[in-house]
Amino acid sequence: MTMTQPLVLPDTGRRVAVLGAGSWGTTFAKILGDAGCSVAVWARRPELAREISQSRRNSDYLPGINLPRNVAASPRLPEVLEGAEHVYLSVPSQSLRENLRIVKELIPETATVVSLMKGVERGTLARMSEVILAELGIDSDRIAVVSGPNLALEIAKEQPTAAVVSSTSLATASDVALAASNRYFRCFVNTDVVGTEFGGVLKNLIAVAIGIVDGVGYGENTKASIITRGLVEMTDFAVAYGALPETMSGLAGLGDLIATCESPLSRNNTAGRLLGQGYDYHEVVAQMNQTAEGLASVAPVLELAAAKGVEMPIVMQVAEVLAGTLAPRDLAPHLTTDTTEPQGE
Amino acid sequence: MTMTQPLVLPDTGRRVAVLGAGSWGTTFAKILGDAGCSVAVWARRPELAREISQSRRNSDYLPGINLPRNVAASPRLPEVLEGAEHVYLSVPSQSLRENLRIVKELIPETATVVSLMKGVERGTLARMSEVILAELGIDSDRIAVVSGPNLALEIAKEQPTAAVVSSTSLATASDVALAASNRYFRCFVNTDVVGTEFGGVLKNLIAVAIGIVDGVGYGENTKASIITRGLVEMTDFAVAYGALPETMSGLAGLGDLIATCESPLSRNNTAGRLLGQGYDYHEVVAQMNQTAEGLASVAPVLELAAAKGVEMPIVMQVAEVLAGTLAPRDLAPHLTTDTTEPQGE
Repeated sequence: MTMTQPLVLPDTGRRVAVLGAGSWGTTFAKILGDAGCSVAVWARRPELAREISQSRRNSDYLPGINLPRNVAASPRLPEVLEGAEHVYLSVPSQSLRENLRIVKELIPETATVVSLMKGVERGTLARMSEVILAELGIDSDRIAVVSGPNLALEIAKEQPTAAVVSSTSLATASDVALAASNRYFRCFVNTDVVGTEFGGVLKNLIAVAIGIVDGVGYGENTKASIITRGLVEMTDFAVAYGALPETMSGLAGLGDLIATCESPLSRNNTAGRLLGQGYDYHEVVAQMNQTAEGLASVAPVLELAAAKGVEMPIVMQVAEVLAGTLAPRDLAPHLTTDTTEPQGE
Repeated sequence: MTMTQPLVLPDTGRRVAVLGAGSWGTTFAKILGDAGCSVAVWARRPELAREISQSRRNSDYLPGINLPRNVAASPRLPEVLEGAEHVYLSVPSQSLRENLRIVKELIPETATVVSLMKGVERGTLARMSEVILAELGIDSDRIAVVSGPNLALEIAKEQPTAAVVSSTSLATASDVALAASNRYFRCFVNTDVVGTEFGGVLKNLIAVAIGIVDGVGYGENTKASIITRGLVEMTDFAVAYGALPETMSGLAGLGDLIATCESPLSRNNTAGRLLGQGYDYHEVVAQMNQTAEGLASVAPVLELAAAKGVEMPIVMQVAEVLAGTLAPRDLAPHLTTDTTEPQGE
């Protein structure tokens, strides 16, 4: 066993930290590095940290992608977080709270904490920024979230991509946008944290619906109808929780929804497709190694929707398919009985 | 040469006529037939009319699709139009006016005239329903239009599809919706004819942009951004001409836009892809046998936009690619210089 090397980073550029070296965390480290930051990545496994620092590669998650020289990794949190102006979080959403408890004392006092995660916490139904606020006890103006049509592998290949950075403080959002914008990654800013985060949660549910009809064998007409109607119920839900409708019709809502629904690599899509092909819920969960966030979010989202009296017919139909009470081929918004096209609020 | 047979249709069901036996006209005849109507189709070529009536096939446009027994065709307009309660028009949009002059005297006095076409007339920049109104001189309440995410081949295969029927008279729209709804085709109604028609015109322009970035090799992130931003400029344009924003965020706007952008068979997509691969405008036009409506609409739509002071940055970029003044790889909404995500009105 070799000794773990110390973290070495160039002196130039702004010092930032990324916690989590999965495909999105590593891709975001590359984005920040290509934007001129000096990026320390926390990788739990020493051998992965070594590969990133020495070979500038993360071959498990981003095969074939070269990382810039101003990105290095370590399994030791103190040296990753030391002097970081921004701390980007990309850990599994259900493990965020415990991770925050570990890093709390290590986060520099004036650092901005940025969530790269999409999901709600089981049990509490809290959004990621709410978990950060509760655990770190910092001012909400020091918290930002990033969302949008951001398939990691495409960005890692430097395909032009737009994202949304949101914070209750426009100055904080702009500061993060500045740190993360480069020639292939462009950040827009807003102050609608609720809408920006819920967009990233809700689109997974509609992506499951798209996967289901894909598995049945339906085509683009059906899918376009589901995306169109899906955006309406996403908007109804998010607006009921204080989001702006413009956020949902922008990159963090519609944009992310379309990219997720059209990505054949999406886990939510795959889970839906297996359901559409006739596998039941337990078979799908057993067959997939990674969690499909969309499946796990159905029950919590319907619970939150019911609390505000919001109707979500497509998500309801997905729940019925999961429960085995609706045949996948009957999932389609064209089967409603109204003749006037329903509209959002 | 054999004699053309007389048009024979069952006595049951409502008598309707479809003018035009291309892929969409024939598919719509099947929709109406499967909804219980007695459908007479006008096919200009006698051999095509014979194939439809005798073999219940249109092998040029819908290979492998069987037409129901209550659909028959004729090259003779008088017998096609005799007794028709609804007259559905599916001729090339640029030939609509001359076709209307030919059929004007043959259309029964109380018939509803329904446009299945998407486009604006060159020169006059008139929408299809405006051409119908001008040429037939009938009340606008007798005119309806059909639009939505309606890829013909998928509907011909009886995949579940939703459409929008629009007329200034809700009663007329509902009557057409009733005639055309069947187990796989569901019609919603509205009275926003302007929005419903412009949705079908404008989406072709965004589909060209999607084709261009596809040709360059960009992925789903870029395409999702273009669709998201494209819907905003479509909405700005249509609203300036009196449309309702809800129509644009519904099936006739967003729904049709997504289906068109995701269809690899779309002519607009193909034209864009060739441009993205580096062919110039004249090469693309020469290489494609059929017209790409999107290419032809760029100049008229920008003219109409300028008349109302509406900005359409993506359509402008498409025009620049067509003119050879913008490299296809630079077409992407992420390249704007603002940091606040622009919103529609």
